[in-house]
Amino acid sequence: MKNYTKIKDIPNLSETIKDAILLKMNPFEFQNLGQHKTLVMLFFNSSLRTRLSTEKAAKNLGMEVTILNVNDAWNLEFEDGTIMNMDKSEHVKDAAQVISQYADIIAVRAFPSLTDKAKDESEFILNSFKKYATVPIVNMESATAHPLQALADAITLTELTEKAKPKVVLSWAPHPKALPQAVANSFVEMMQDLEVDLTITHPEGYELSEAITKDTPINHNQEEALKDADFVYVKNWSSYKDYGQNLNQDNNWMMTQEKLGKAKFMHCLPVRRNVVVEDAVLDSDQSVVIKQANNRTYAAQVVLKQILEDL
Amino acid sequence: MKNYTKIKDIPNLSETIKDAILLKMNPFEFQNLGQHKTLVMLFFNSSLRTRLSTEKAAKNLGMEVTILNVNDAWNLEFEDGTIMNMDKSEHVKDAAQVISQYADIIAVRAFPSLTDKAKDESEFILNSFKKYATVPIVNMESATAHPLQALADAITLTELTEKAKPKVVLSWAPHPKALPQAVANSFVEMMQDLEVDLTITHPEGYELSEAITKDTPINHNQEEALKDADFVYVKNWSSYKDYGQNLNQDNNWMMTQEKLGKAKFMHCLPVRRNVVVEDAVLDSDQSVVIKQANNRTYAAQVVLKQILEDL
Amino acid sequence: MKNYTKIKDIPNLSETIKDAILLKMNPFEFQNLGQHKTLVMLFFNSSLRTRLSTEKAAKNLGMEVTILNVNDAWNLEFEDGTIMNMDKSEHVKDAAQVISQYADIIAVRAFPSLTDKAKDESEFILNSFKKYATVPIVNMESATAHPLQALADAITLTELTEKAKPKVVLSWAPHPKALPQAVANSFVEMMQDLEVDLTITHPEGYELSEAITKDTPINHNQEEALKDADFVYVKNWSSYKDYGQNLNQDNNWMMTQEKLGKAKFMHCLPVRRNVVVEDAVLDSDQSVVIKQANNRTYAAQVVLKQILEDL
Repeated sequence: MKNYTKIKDIPNLSETIKDAILLKMNPFEFQNLGQHKTLVMLFFNSSLRTRLSTEKAAKNLGMEVTILNVNDAWNLEFEDGTIMNMDKSEHVKDAAQVISQYADIIAVRAFPSLTDKAKDESEFILNSFKKYATVPIVNMESATAHPLQALADAITLTELTEKAKPKVVLSWAPHPKALPQAVANSFVEMMQDLEVDLTITHPEGYELSEAITKDTPINHNQEEALKDADFVYVKNWSSYKDYGQNLNQDNNWMMTQEKLGKAKFMHCLPVRRNVVVEDAVLDSDQSVVIKQANNRTYAAQVVLKQILEDL
Repeated sequence: MKNYTKIKDIPNLSETIKDAILLKMNPFEFQNLGQHKTLVMLFFNSSLRTRLSTEKAAKNLGMEVTILNVNDAWNLEFEDGTIMNMDKSEHVKDAAQVISQYADIIAVRAFPSLTDKAKDESEFILNSFKKYATVPIVNMESATAHPLQALADAITLTELTEKAKPKVVLSWAPHPKALPQAVANSFVEMMQDLEVDLTITHPEGYELSEAITKDTPINHNQEEALKDADFVYVKNWSSYKDYGQNLNQDNNWMMTQEKLGKAKFMHCLPVRRNVVVEDAVLDSDQSVVIKQANNRTYAAQVVLKQILEDL
Repeated sequence: MKNYTKIKDIPNLSETIKDAILLKMNPFEFQNLGQHKTLVMLFFNSSLRTRLSTEKAAKNLGMEVTILNVNDAWNLEFEDGTIMNMDKSEHVKDAAQVISQYADIIAVRAFPSLTDKAKDESEFILNSFKKYATVPIVNMESATAHPLQALADAITLTELTEKAKPKVVLSWAPHPKALPQAVANSFVEMMQDLEVDLTITHPEGYELSEAITKDTPINHNQEEALKDADFVYVKNWSSYKDYGQNLNQDNNWMMTQEKLGKAKFMHCLPVRRNVVVEDAVLDSDQSVVIKQANNRTYAAQVVLKQILEDL
């Protein structure tokens, strides 16, 4: 693997999932692979799971890890040809090349503005690092994608499914704050690549980009969509059409024990209890969110392993 | 040891102190014990000594260490059953379980509000982690206790005492800011478990919780209390009765060379010079504060060692 | 080496440069030298290159590294004898001794105020650590000097020069913000110790301290100064005479491809594109700024190596 900025960067998905499950059983098997290699983790936004799991994954492989909160340093310029006489101290062209002097792999977290759709879709932060860095780039959640989360979700689903082709439902949930579409996008793309029967359910106006959903069925009737589901992935996202807007706070879309039926409950976390999902679901045995969080480590580890093997 | 949230968690105090002194002589003897184990240090408040000494202690044992300033991430919800539609992004129930996926031991620093006595005394932050985490918890100073500091103090006192039962005085000092009772509480509890003759001296109104002081003599006359002391531990704390209030700024309570006599001077640091204690004391050979700071490493190390041995 | 706070601390400059180039070829040759040794990096100001390169250098030598953003902790008092009843929580006298309990080497970054010349020139932060710490101190850029940068520059120049005595020009550049003289000072001092023909060019009013420039020629005519240069080091600094003032924003002083001629372009970074230097220069093969950034690692590594050898 050369970079991991999107799901399609995985050369062989089913092999990769199997590899991750093997790493989970024996996390230190490749502890010499990363020896004398450094992962620099750049955070433009805060992080708990991604920070801890990716750091652990890299150390399991014997890598050195360095954390840099970019906002503690200074503002980067991303436009070409600008006269930098305002508040930006360094151009990403220089910063990315410089950081590449100290890193063997650079991981980047950079959320969208949710105000400028075209700019967010250009993935200018992630793609600038990809363009100018001279070492591989790993996406720790960008404006439109969260491929490490999606890989962890695929691992979790593979571990838990008892059917050849389980029914998986992505169900929109209300949230007080406008959130990115990144997790939903990557989950949909990942499920499209697995042997699952995927349905998306959300209120009208919350359609994800058609470039993502393609021919995946969308049902605005949550009850219908959830019928006979094996896995229900609940997630809020803000409107893609009315970009970044929080159109609807309809609490009827909150996931409940009753709606869930016998399905497993999935969520990427952090989750607002009793807004996105009721306590009874999260505290039940049907919730697999902690397993998902645990699998973040092995998703990151298998990605770093494949990149290290290709250095 | 299963957790170290309070002094009473130490199974055998005198053995533990002896062990710590041995670790100090040979800090890397158990450098394989922590191999492939991760300490996650969670800071709700800033730290210098606790951060550096605990990190060093863990690394001396071969552990990986990850530092997380919780306030850089997001606000945690601690109440059960709330509808999380305000500023809290994640419930501690989920966060603690998640962090347990990446940590073998979690250390937590969380100061009191000094405004809500009942809430502070409930130790809701520390105890929530203890309740929901699935790995051991270490207290890096909580609302009401600082057991790592107290253990370092016990080690220092044991190293320095020339008497079978030295006289130890805890002497309140003025301070411009309202401070927690945590250090004083843990020092008193620790001294009650050692072979020392303990006296507490402070102005009226600064009585610590009776649940802590029990039958330890309290003398409001500092001069009388200090008479023939072997060790004088100076510390400010805010009023426990008039909770969190800074009732008295009487500079006469500042520790001086004259008052100290021939006793050793102890303080947990940081210390306000010429407010809590005059320069002459801190800069004299009677001050053992740097030795105390050094012993913070071995206090943390013996605690982590005992927890690792019980994993 | 006992400390590295200034260029003159290097015992043998040409040997040190040669050693650094050897380390670059074999960065892990001395990976046991730093075993069980800890570098504590204290940042009073933000950092990208210095942070990443020094951390990498220390880890290449097998050291443990701990990063502390001092401002995340608390304000330090630097004056002697003060009554600390205001906003300063700890005296540097105590902090430096305490940190020395946990560190084998302490690295400090502390920029000038650019408002109080005498105080900045006293280097009170760096020198307080040097005075009170009981372990060696490394300067990661102080009020008046940046000796790790200058050593990286010397390494770069040594690697690239094709002449026995190349012509080197330090050329002032405009900048929207008042910047320290530290980089320029250390570069001048370093070049004075190498076999180079050094000229400084800047607008009137931007004279560096005469204690630094000594008899190095200063030419206010940039075009004349740049004639036949082999290396041009471009850098902004604020006025030393009108201390900390940004007197002149004359864009004619920006470095261009035309002015540069056939010389190599050097800059410490971060750099404001099209303010300090035009894009065409930075994006050309004549720019060696990324090589300079890379050499920051080996400058730091050779310094840490020499200090470790003297512990």
